[in-house]
Amino acid sequence: MPRVYNFSAGPAMLPEYVLKDAAAEMLDYKGTGMSVMEMSHRSPAFTAIIKTAERDLRDLMNIPDNYKVLFLQGGASLQFAGIPMNLSLPKNGKADYIVDGSWSEKAYKEAARFIDAKCIASSKDTNFDRIPDLSDLPIRDDADYVYICENETIHGLTYPEIPDTKGHILVSDQSSMFLSKPVDVSKYGLIYGGVQKNVGPAGVVIVIVREDLLPEDKIDGVPTMMNLRVHADKESLYNTPPCYGIYICGKVFKYLKAQGGLEAMAIRNAEKAKILYDAIDESKLFKCAVADPAQRSKMNVPFVTGNPDLDKKFVEEAALAGLWNLKGHRSVGGLRASIYNAVPREGVIALVDFMKKFEAENL
Amino acid sequence: MPRVYNFSAGPAMLPEYVLKDAAAEMLDYKGTGMSVMEMSHRSPAFTAIIKTAERDLRDLMNIPDNYKVLFLQGGASLQFAGIPMNLSLPKNGKADYIVDGSWSEKAYKEAARFIDAKCIASSKDTNFDRIPDLSDLPIRDDADYVYICENETIHGLTYPEIPDTKGHILVSDQSSMFLSKPVDVSKYGLIYGGVQKNVGPAGVVIVIVREDLLPEDKIDGVPTMMNLRVHADKESLYNTPPCYGIYICGKVFKYLKAQGGLEAMAIRNAEKAKILYDAIDESKLFKCAVADPAQRSKMNVPFVTGNPDLDKKFVEEAALAGLWNLKGHRSVGGLRASIYNAVPREGVIALVDFMKKFEAENL
Repeated sequence: MPRVYNFSAGPAMLPEYVLKDAAAEMLDYKGTGMSVMEMSHRSPAFTAIIKTAERDLRDLMNIPDNYKVLFLQGGASLQFAGIPMNLSLPKNGKADYIVDGSWSEKAYKEAARFIDAKCIASSKDTNFDRIPDLSDLPIRDDADYVYICENETIHGLTYPEIPDTKGHILVSDQSSMFLSKPVDVSKYGLIYGGVQKNVGPAGVVIVIVREDLLPEDKIDGVPTMMNLRVHADKESLYNTPPCYGIYICGKVFKYLKAQGGLEAMAIRNAEKAKILYDAIDESKLFKCAVADPAQRSKMNVPFVTGNPDLDKKFVEEAALAGLWNLKGHRSVGGLRASIYNAVPREGVIALVDFMKKFEAENL
Repeated sequence: MPRVYNFSAGPAMLPEYVLKDAAAEMLDYKGTGMSVMEMSHRSPAFTAIIKTAERDLRDLMNIPDNYKVLFLQGGASLQFAGIPMNLSLPKNGKADYIVDGSWSEKAYKEAARFIDAKCIASSKDTNFDRIPDLSDLPIRDDADYVYICENETIHGLTYPEIPDTKGHILVSDQSSMFLSKPVDVSKYGLIYGGVQKNVGPAGVVIVIVREDLLPEDKIDGVPTMMNLRVHADKESLYNTPPCYGIYICGKVFKYLKAQGGLEAMAIRNAEKAKILYDAIDESKLFKCAVADPAQRSKMNVPFVTGNPDLDKKFVEEAALAGLWNLKGHRSVGGLRASIYNAVPREGVIALVDFMKKFEAENL
């Protein structure tokens, strides 16, 4: 079977080059006589893998020296508790959340189980069709941080610019936009993301955190494995890390550098997104809930026909045409095309062509 | 480079058959046109992978229907906090630990941060050279469980039989003996293990837990992601699981079934261990700290020459002979050969031959 165009929201498409390389090295990584899966995490070969991955990620994102880069387990979902536990519980125990979709809402609700978390802006009353008004946010003076999910995978929303946190620390879940464009890391206290969307296989979460925000290595009520200081001090080797996933991420980092880095990815991703949003806006059948072009995610594009039966037919017929995983998230229905770094422009054009054909046949 | 004999304590050797199969499927899993790394965790293809893996594991271990099987992230180390949080915090908040090595000691210390954990037997005063006396254990009447690490990877100790817990629930860390021999699951309340020793790539921990021991789905102070009920109710798909690792574990399960199951593995592992321990006992150079043959681990065999310089020389010269990762854990020094399922008998014989040669040259 030829490779298909895979529009899954995550786990998602990876560069074919990376997969071929991984397959070729599966039984013998660079003359070691073993697979990366079989290597001690403290061996020289794996040490080189994780150190190189970190250095390449630092290069790609231009991460300042006073930030730690951690490769952890548990997904972004474990950090929904981990972030308040690390950044707030040992301080004022208060943090302010902006809620613009399912993931920021989940993070907010989980944080509220451990600290005094407050939702200071939300677009829930308009079904998360926009970024809430960010002018003059009612941030509490003693809030330990302000939290955003910078790209909402399910609702297809992104922040055109980061909010004015009035001097408070900004924490950002960048899972579904990680490495899709340059970001100014120095404006954040902590950036994190599950890698299974734009970077690698599920099972690795990357945390980039300003060193001075790390807590003590023991916090009452916080599992040792959730303490970011513990992992920072041990350079992600406190316990056995998800070695193979880190190895694949490292290959993707190298690949992105060779492709021109994040500036190049941003240009390509903007082009791909324009092709798809233009097709939706020009269509009489398909609609996109997010009206403001600046707030439309360049990674996750949800759209609908307005008729659930027709949506279902679209998903089925698209798959037969080699365009997979176009179903919207089960919580909102409809359709969604995730067009991460590894989805080629040709894939988006094939999708748009199919949409036109489908519209002609079904309108 | 030919494949080497890899005696790493974990991540560790995997069956070559499994690695070849994974490499062949890397770009196109069974005609899906995508890698398992790229698949939505809710796709039919991945659903079949995780369901088949669970069924094969249930077959292999003969797991009763009233036990849940969970594929989680975070390693055994996260469960050091997770187990007391789930099995004790909502009940009496007391649990009793038997400490026979570094891993049970770590688990005990972490548990004591969340509940009233008590060490009821220990062999620390003899440097963990034996399983502590298990006759008439001073288990507290209201202890929620009794905890053991059934095979201590660093000290090379194993339980000849499980302790009499006087009707209390038994919790066992089986990380480094998982699937090495049949165990009677019905005698345990919870069995868990990181897979990176005997089963698959680092980044998956398997928890087998009796259904009636699962807590409510919200426990004060416990992150949602650490609640075993949450994962059980969602069949390990509460969030994105470590899909690729689960896929490899599934392949190993199938491979073990084809090899004759755990009875066959137990026979082979006992034979391999006998070859190595006999060589140590017959040697004038090498010594093993664990005196009682019944308590000697069949998976991890620590030994020493008594001379750190000679140990170092042994590790270096062995590697040149294609025998890798024979250094003891950094906390205890010396030498260690981990001879998990995937280490072939020929590998153990090659090691023993090398030991004899080294002894003749260095004694």
